[in-house]
Amino acid sequence: MDFEKIKIKIKKLVEEELFSLEPWIINVGWEEKLPKLNELREKVKDMGLWLPQIPKEYGGLGLSLQQHGEVSEILGTSPYGHYIFNCQAPDAGNMEILIEFGTNEQKEKYLYPLLEGKTRSCFAMTEPNYAGSNPVKMGTIAKKEGENYIINGHKWFTSGFDGSSFVIVMLITKPEEDNQHKRASQIIIPTDTDGLEFVRNVQIMGHPGGGWESHSEIKFNNCKVSSSNVLGGDGEGFSIAQKRLGPGRIHHCMRWIGICERSFDLMCKRAVSREISHGKKLADKQTIQNWIAECRAEINAARLLVKDAAEKIDKNGSYKSRSEISIIKFYCANVLQKVVDYAIQVHGALGVTDDIILASYYRHERAARIYDGADEVHKSRLARSILKLYNS
Amino acid sequence: MDFEKIKIKIKKLVEEELFSLEPWIINVGWEEKLPKLNELREKVKDMGLWLPQIPKEYGGLGLSLQQHGEVSEILGTSPYGHYIFNCQAPDAGNMEILIEFGTNEQKEKYLYPLLEGKTRSCFAMTEPNYAGSNPVKMGTIAKKEGENYIINGHKWFTSGFDGSSFVIVMLITKPEEDNQHKRASQIIIPTDTDGLEFVRNVQIMGHPGGGWESHSEIKFNNCKVSSSNVLGGDGEGFSIAQKRLGPGRIHHCMRWIGICERSFDLMCKRAVSREISHGKKLADKQTIQNWIAECRAEINAARLLVKDAAEKIDKNGSYKSRSEISIIKFYCANVLQKVVDYAIQVHGALGVTDDIILASYYRHERAARIYDGADEVHKSRLARSILKLYNS
Amino acid sequence: MDFEKIKIKIKKLVEEELFSLEPWIINVGWEEKLPKLNELREKVKDMGLWLPQIPKEYGGLGLSLQQHGEVSEILGTSPYGHYIFNCQAPDAGNMEILIEFGTNEQKEKYLYPLLEGKTRSCFAMTEPNYAGSNPVKMGTIAKKEGENYIINGHKWFTSGFDGSSFVIVMLITKPEEDNQHKRASQIIIPTDTDGLEFVRNVQIMGHPGGGWESHSEIKFNNCKVSSSNVLGGDGEGFSIAQKRLGPGRIHHCMRWIGICERSFDLMCKRAVSREISHGKKLADKQTIQNWIAECRAEINAARLLVKDAAEKIDKNGSYKSRSEISIIKFYCANVLQKVVDYAIQVHGALGVTDDIILASYYRHERAARIYDGADEVHKSRLARSILKLYNS
Amino acid sequence: MDFEKIKIKIKKLVEEELFSLEPWIINVGWEEKLPKLNELREKVKDMGLWLPQIPKEYGGLGLSLQQHGEVSEILGTSPYGHYIFNCQAPDAGNMEILIEFGTNEQKEKYLYPLLEGKTRSCFAMTEPNYAGSNPVKMGTIAKKEGENYIINGHKWFTSGFDGSSFVIVMLITKPEEDNQHKRASQIIIPTDTDGLEFVRNVQIMGHPGGGWESHSEIKFNNCKVSSSNVLGGDGEGFSIAQKRLGPGRIHHCMRWIGICERSFDLMCKRAVSREISHGKKLADKQTIQNWIAECRAEINAARLLVKDAAEKIDKNGSYKSRSEISIIKFYCANVLQKVVDYAIQVHGALGVTDDIILASYYRHERAARIYDGADEVHKSRLARSILKLYNS
Repeated sequence: MDFEKIKIKIKKLVEEELFSLEPWIINVGWEEKLPKLNELREKVKDMGLWLPQIPKEYGGLGLSLQQHGEVSEILGTSPYGHYIFNCQAPDAGNMEILIEFGTNEQKEKYLYPLLEGKTRSCFAMTEPNYAGSNPVKMGTIAKKEGENYIINGHKWFTSGFDGSSFVIVMLITKPEEDNQHKRASQIIIPTDTDGLEFVRNVQIMGHPGGGWESHSEIKFNNCKVSSSNVLGGDGEGFSIAQKRLGPGRIHHCMRWIGICERSFDLMCKRAVSREISHGKKLADKQTIQNWIAECRAEINAARLLVKDAAEKIDKNGSYKSRSEISIIKFYCANVLQKVVDYAIQVHGALGVTDDIILASYYRHERAARIYDGADEVHKSRLARSILKLYNS
Repeated sequence: MDFEKIKIKIKKLVEEELFSLEPWIINVGWEEKLPKLNELREKVKDMGLWLPQIPKEYGGLGLSLQQHGEVSEILGTSPYGHYIFNCQAPDAGNMEILIEFGTNEQKEKYLYPLLEGKTRSCFAMTEPNYAGSNPVKMGTIAKKEGENYIINGHKWFTSGFDGSSFVIVMLITKPEEDNQHKRASQIIIPTDTDGLEFVRNVQIMGHPGGGWESHSEIKFNNCKVSSSNVLGGDGEGFSIAQKRLGPGRIHHCMRWIGICERSFDLMCKRAVSREISHGKKLADKQTIQNWIAECRAEINAARLLVKDAAEKIDKNGSYKSRSEISIIKFYCANVLQKVVDYAIQVHGALGVTDDIILASYYRHERAARIYDGADEVHKSRLARSILKLYNS
Repeated sequence: MDFEKIKIKIKKLVEEELFSLEPWIINVGWEEKLPKLNELREKVKDMGLWLPQIPKEYGGLGLSLQQHGEVSEILGTSPYGHYIFNCQAPDAGNMEILIEFGTNEQKEKYLYPLLEGKTRSCFAMTEPNYAGSNPVKMGTIAKKEGENYIINGHKWFTSGFDGSSFVIVMLITKPEEDNQHKRASQIIIPTDTDGLEFVRNVQIMGHPGGGWESHSEIKFNNCKVSSSNVLGGDGEGFSIAQKRLGPGRIHHCMRWIGICERSFDLMCKRAVSREISHGKKLADKQTIQNWIAECRAEINAARLLVKDAAEKIDKNGSYKSRSEISIIKFYCANVLQKVVDYAIQVHGALGVTDDIILASYYRHERAARIYDGADEVHKSRLARSILKLYNS
Repeated sequence: MDFEKIKIKIKKLVEEELFSLEPWIINVGWEEKLPKLNELREKVKDMGLWLPQIPKEYGGLGLSLQQHGEVSEILGTSPYGHYIFNCQAPDAGNMEILIEFGTNEQKEKYLYPLLEGKTRSCFAMTEPNYAGSNPVKMGTIAKKEGENYIINGHKWFTSGFDGSSFVIVMLITKPEEDNQHKRASQIIIPTDTDGLEFVRNVQIMGHPGGGWESHSEIKFNNCKVSSSNVLGGDGEGFSIAQKRLGPGRIHHCMRWIGICERSFDLMCKRAVSREISHGKKLADKQTIQNWIAECRAEINAARLLVKDAAEKIDKNGSYKSRSEISIIKFYCANVLQKVVDYAIQVHGALGVTDDIILASYYRHERAARIYDGADEVHKSRLARSILKLYNS
């Protein structure tokens, strides 16, 4: 199937099958919507569109980073687009690193069921007691004891934990290492392991959380796992994270652009249909026109920046493209927030209701300026790397 | 009791009794929190602080507009501050117009129980099918039939409807009037009247609504009420609304400033306590300092503008102060959104959780830029009234 | 010579020969700097880089639109870059339309001396009495009398008029045409023609104007020219202007990006060199880092948008790319203003002096948001063309 | 004369005598406009309005800080308003400190001629080699030698130096002091003193500078002055500067608000008079209306903040009001820049010409965000003083 056809099929599926489920699907709990989502997953498999981002030898479509970026924009127009194609975060990132770094045993146990859609997984990084702006500082520690690790620590914002089969945990295994980027490892822990305590789903902006839509707080209380569960080598936690970062950012940003396009579309539809007086529509107001023009310009700019970053990652790798990656992180997150905000304003009172999808975007995408490094962290990082060139 | 003492007592009560209930009180349903709120209402009565905004002859403290503005700021630091003093919207506005325009019979039946806190009420103005930017256009119509009115129409965002005793409805009684500001009336309708259909509580930004915290959709299907339920005279709907507007705006804006101060306080506390690295706190980061400085400047500016508007209303009445009223509407709503947004950003991941109050402000105060006339409407109105002076 | 080499040579020339003349060259009058500029023009010719944007058969380098865009960015880093390569506005636009629409006689008399750099020319469009936002309304009118036109009217912002050989004037020749885009023509008028009155050079932001740096006010008082001076046909004024518009906008925007890059470079140099206290540099302040990061992101975005627009113009022509052209106009003008403003702020008091180039950019590029259609006009136009798709 | 009458007279004088001289007076050199300004100074004296800010015993009107603030707004509507009333910076500040700290001899020699308008003076603080953000660091040093000081150093932005009689210089006299705020003194130096070298008038945003409108670069080369020229005591430089600061900031900010009101007025006049098409005026465009509304709100807010700061200074002194003083510095400077920018945009091409006053405001008031402490310095200072309360 050629790529243009793939995109058309995916777009049609998302618009026909997912848009039509709104607002029901946004507003009900995970268990209630799951049967419908599973049904759509089967449909996606039947159409041969399953796992677009995954290499063909692992059963996916084998799309390139840039191609999957384009797909991610389309899927992003619905909150469940990625889910029904099994390329949702954090599973997509986990699949990627299991493919690259997993042992055969790890793949057997964790990767394949995930690829088939039989299980879900999660990734535990953020801790309540340490600032995310400085990821090398962590309180979760694994001590070697014979062939095992004994883990103690406290994580939250472990997205999708509730109901998942395993969690990949970022933690300190070599606290004595001089190079602080060599202290951490990633370890796979089945969620039913003794000593892994589920504290709660953290309620986010009014959403209680559940299933894939949970952001859980968890604790490790002398939790024991075999050292064969270490992913990619002891002390390799950050170097794996680095690899994961670049493509992940591209997918995320393209998903945000999908949200922007959806919001933009709703804004335009509202503008041409809402009468304000004497046959005048909202679309006739210059303020609305300004918003539409500014959003169009900035969404286009955001997409071009992401495409440019994807090209650079393809060519030079994530590490050498980290400035581009920082740029798209904060630029796109701000465009996202602006577009959603304007779209709500154009809808008036309807905009803040859960009758349409915008209020949900408004709440849940506020975190975009915070997670994976707050805007401020990325800006400082980018500026310092630019200024370094002037200092030499 | 002198006014400075009143303020100190109120502040102490709000901070000690209400802040300590967070986050529980923000996150549970209306029925669950009501007993606690009622208990606090009794306490307020016992302390002699009940109904601060109401004239003494009606059992209140008889504060002036400017004084109640200052109180409103303090109460606004908790979402339930106004409620426990029985000066919450929309009841406060209803009390005010019942006092000014109500007949003795209307006062007996509707006002007194409200003042005592035995009932709640609501106000139905917004309609799903008409733009709020043009309030003279409405689809809800009351036809005179003998001594009664037969009402048909469709309203939503009738805040607090769920569980209230009566609703004051803005509707068209004289469609034939040339002067479009003379076509509407306000009619009091008991909520158990036949033909008044409760459609649903509209879910707002993830909040299902309930009790005083509902924003209901309702329908009038040949709903019959006696013409003695008209408030202040047939065709007087807008002139009553006008009266209600000025003081209402002052209270609202001061409540927003209360929210700003609360958010500002949380932001500063977080800044000085959150370590980011090597003994450095968030407070040491210049970006955070910029936000704190800008918020301080703009909150101060907002408060001075509101005080200035209150003085003008006191001196010249609401109508002649409508430019000042428009200014504070849009200026304060934007400061509010900015301060809350910064405060969340300073809290990082914690900021989007419902563990603290900021996420709730973020969601529910987004509507501030929309209700009572969207920013854009107020700006145009203000500008046109300024430009008129240049045209003459 | 391959294109990468051309760019390197041009960059070296601009930086070595032009930067070193600052601030002298910015601050002296046109007559004083002209000998030096002419000397550099000879150098450019000797290096085989003359007329980069002009087809080879007319003696230029024959660069494509996108290539000349890249060159224009480099030249834009100095205010005299385009001038010494003879691709400065408005001459470059005039060359382009003379090549495409000029008769042999017109080329002989007007184009060739211009290409050789022996003459300068100008373009008269803007009128003091008509809003530029509505270009079809003009007061300058040419009446046919036998073989001649008799012209009356009033223009200003005729850039470069002072000292030029001819002016191409946009004026009404067919006021009776129903299609208002068919009423105007472009006529070539030698500047020494009787009845062409030079009123003054308009002083702009403290600059008195002179030579190529003039923005002149002129009047046509029964000014007579032969009808053989009409360019491209009677009534074709707008269709010629349309052609000129697309590539002109690309060059302009890329020139602005050159200014942005120059300002950005000065800002970074200042940040790493200016000590503020105890060994701390401006570069260590987070506010400065934020500005650098935001500027980098937005300059990159601007360049990508312009490249994208250039590709679309190449592929689909100016008319079909008018939305992209509107976007780059207002987006780039605002990035320009922001970057220059931040760069000045980083320089402190030095930034507002004419000891460095930034103050000159600040003053003279303020007009970028006004000329060729104010931001507001482009935004409305863009939005209306988007909304039209929703109305059909 | 009662204060309301004073204001009316001043307003009439400024509007009738100064506005009518524009644009001539903005665009000619200092020597050319001086006779006219002197003539108007005589008129002001004749009307009994001379020196509004100066105590009656020194020949002024004896206005309070708040009253002179109101006057300063009116005078600020013309660039020469303050000058013709002899309350222009930096002379007004010099008068103030000479009155408070001057010896009888100093008053005789320096103050009285200044009050009479026979001389001009200046104040030398800023140095090219030290960041203004950290005023305690200075390179200008006075060494005691017997009864004299020998001064060496380098200053610039010594406003009004060119043609003045004396300069008050901030310099280091006690480099060995532990308390860095006790190291500096202010010394009066007649401008014809040997060793005081006039280097040049720094050209600012296209303005060559001259007379009162100069910003000069000067050098002290073993310049000798008697120690009787020290003002207010050795080591008291900063404590005097502190005193001068509060009222100076009020006057400056009110002058800026005067500029805002003038620009706002021009914007509104343009909006109602400029036709854009078919009888539509600029005033009918919603974008223009938005700007007018936002400017009105923010100018009002700025004025209220300044009044509030003036009250606090009156009540608690400058030192205890330094947070309010920081707030008005950065808030007002930003409102100023925004209002002028919008006013220019509304004027289109005319706005960037020197035919009207806006372009001059645009250029010369850009420095408002830089001098007397850049915005960024005031924001950090304010935030740190707020956060200190949270740390204790």
